Amino acid sequence: MRLCVIPGDGIGREVVPAAVAVLQELLPDLEIVQADGGWDCFQRTGTAMPEATLQAVRTCGAGLFGAVSSPSRAVTGYRSAILTLRRELELFANVRPVRSLPGLTSREDVDLIVVRENTEGLYVGRERSEPGGAVAERRITEAASRRIGARALDLACGHSGGRLTIVHKANVLPLTDGLFRDSVRAVIGEAESPRVGDLIVDELLVDVAALKLLEAPQRFGVIVTTNLFGDILSDAAAHWCGGLGLAPSLNWGEGVAVAEPVHGSAPDIAGTGAANPAAAILSAALLVRHVWQRPAMADLIEGAVRRAMQASGPAAGTAAIGDAVRRNLEVAAASG
Amino acid sequence: MRLCVIPGDGIGREVVPAAVAVLQELLPDLEIVQADGGWDCFQRTGTAMPEATLQAVRTCGAGLFGAVSSPSRAVTGYRSAILTLRRELELFANVRPVRSLPGLTSREDVDLIVVRENTEGLYVGRERSEPGGAVAERRITEAASRRIGARALDLACGHSGGRLTIVHKANVLPLTDGLFRDSVRAVIGEAESPRVGDLIVDELLVDVAALKLLEAPQRFGVIVTTNLFGDILSDAAAHWCGGLGLAPSLNWGEGVAVAEPVHGSAPDIAGTGAANPAAAILSAALLVRHVWQRPAMADLIEGAVRRAMQASGPAAGTAAIGDAVRRNLEVAAASG
Ligand SMILES: CC(C)[C@H](C(=O)O)[C@@H](O)C(=O)O
Ligand SMILES: CC(C)[C@H](C(=O)O)[C@@H](O)C(=O)O
Repeated sequence: MRLCVIPGDGIGREVVPAAVAVLQELLPDLEIVQADGGWDCFQRTGTAMPEATLQAVRTCGAGLFGAVSSPSRAVTGYRSAILTLRRELELFANVRPVRSLPGLTSREDVDLIVVRENTEGLYVGRERSEPGGAVAERRITEAASRRIGARALDLACGHSGGRLTIVHKANVLPLTDGLFRDSVRAVIGEAESPRVGDLIVDELLVDVAALKLLEAPQRFGVIVTTNLFGDILSDAAAHWCGGLGLAPSLNWGEGVAVAEPVHGSAPDIAGTGAANPAAAILSAALLVRHVWQRPAMADLIEGAVRRAMQASGPAAGTAAIGDAVRRNLEVAAASG
Repeated sequence: MRLCVIPGDGIGREVVPAAVAVLQELLPDLEIVQADGGWDCFQRTGTAMPEATLQAVRTCGAGLFGAVSSPSRAVTGYRSAILTLRRELELFANVRPVRSLPGLTSREDVDLIVVRENTEGLYVGRERSEPGGAVAERRITEAASRRIGARALDLACGHSGGRLTIVHKANVLPLTDGLFRDSVRAVIGEAESPRVGDLIVDELLVDVAALKLLEAPQRFGVIVTTNLFGDILSDAAAHWCGGLGLAPSLNWGEGVAVAEPVHGSAPDIAGTGAANPAAAILSAALLVRHVWQRPAMADLIEGAVRRAMQASGPAAGTAAIGDAVRRNLEVAAASG
């Protein structure tokens, strides 16, 4: 079992080691491969995502990406490290679970997953200037829509919410989003698992979904949507798990996946030890659950993070929270 | 002074007369011109937005649009009534104020305006099928970005929030959203009013903005953004004014504007008298404020809606709320 770690910039270099320490506690044979990427890497090497890193992730089959800084204005030759990873490794599903921490984040009892198509839509990088303006292409293919639909369906079948909501804007974008919706519906229709029959499948327009995520987050189980809508909705939904600082994600392809805390590199607190490693640890737990397929171990990690956060609060700092999570793992293991 | 009313379908036919009654109370000389539009109109006439209606709105300079039903699946020849109005009359600014009703909608004290570009972006209607998929064009022009920037700047100068936030996704869409951001910045830079110097101008990525609208709605004054982002963010923000059922909007061009409650035609409650006319009345108040330029009268209407809602609650029904608003106008006028 191998894991390629790409700490990146800023607090990425603090939270990734904390998450690795948790994994090593439970998986003593896990081999760690260090790799380079991000803004500092770009300045040193001229690329934010070296071919060697892509190759290392491919070989390991699993990656843990910390966080990267990016230029605030366009820089020639710069291409985002995480977007390159997603595209080059065809990490087509961006899985973003949002769970409330009772007593900590909110009184709502939220347990949902945003499943975001991660390779196309407005992220295809096809923009052109025109006289007086510019045009960006938003591409939706049947193959990518079916592929993300199938993954979302799988996740929905295993999720307690019992509901799969297709989010789109087909009233304004009938060809692209109509295709997305119809492809996801087709995959569901063809599915043979009897568990699919128990699911409630519905759809919402993206504007309405954004509002419902505030008004009634409990109504959601799994949400499946296109790339940029998923970007927006998953950030909004992260409110219910305590904000971006606590939100985990998994960029998940076929035979390869990269876990990634949603937060940024936070240069303002980098080096102070203040960064909360919970999102990185929860992201690592997604690898344990989905890639290494050890759901009981993933539950153990998630439970330990939950208890650590409840005991120390989200502001306790990297070392205190990391230690508390590892302690909680031992307690749970001893009592289990 | 003339107003073209387009009640449309469903509860549009109930809330529009309630709003007109409020306007007539204050503007006895207001001439009302009735016009056709919407789904029922499409079924009768083959178009959801007859040329005669467009012409009537143009002539009046002001319109009040109720709500329209739309087909749930693509129907040949159908083109959305409201999108046609926005496009044909170049109603380039969609102004969506969100104010909390103390004691009613939330404990947060929210007072913000989403200013949405209303003519381009992903709404240009340029989609095409391709082998295996479809492509939609997202067009951003410098002229439209400057025009919306100027209107947002005007609104921000008159808004107590003292802040203008430009929302975009230029990290992924450098040409289109970079152009949008830079054009809005340029308009602000060229502005000569000394009030501009007092404004705080900042920018947020759209995903971060969606989250901040939940976490810290008080941080916002005026938000200016592209068409679909504005659609999503204004629906999310509407949570703070009590949901879509209470959200007003103004589609505002040059010399012509159409007010529109954000809610739909609600066929489930149409005809029962249960529809809340507050959003329609607040939309009419936007005409009073911005088109007829009677800010004191607009304040009066908004105050009356506020008191009516606090007294009756949002579920009191069309007649009860409409009556309460009109009573509150009289009280305020008598005591003022
Ligand atoms: C950094 C940015 C390119 C990225 C995205 O837009 O996907 C981020 O917002 C995310 O959600 O992972
Ligand atoms: C009905 C629909 C076409 C419309 C839009 O997308 O603009 C609506 O959501 C709105 O916000 O006015």
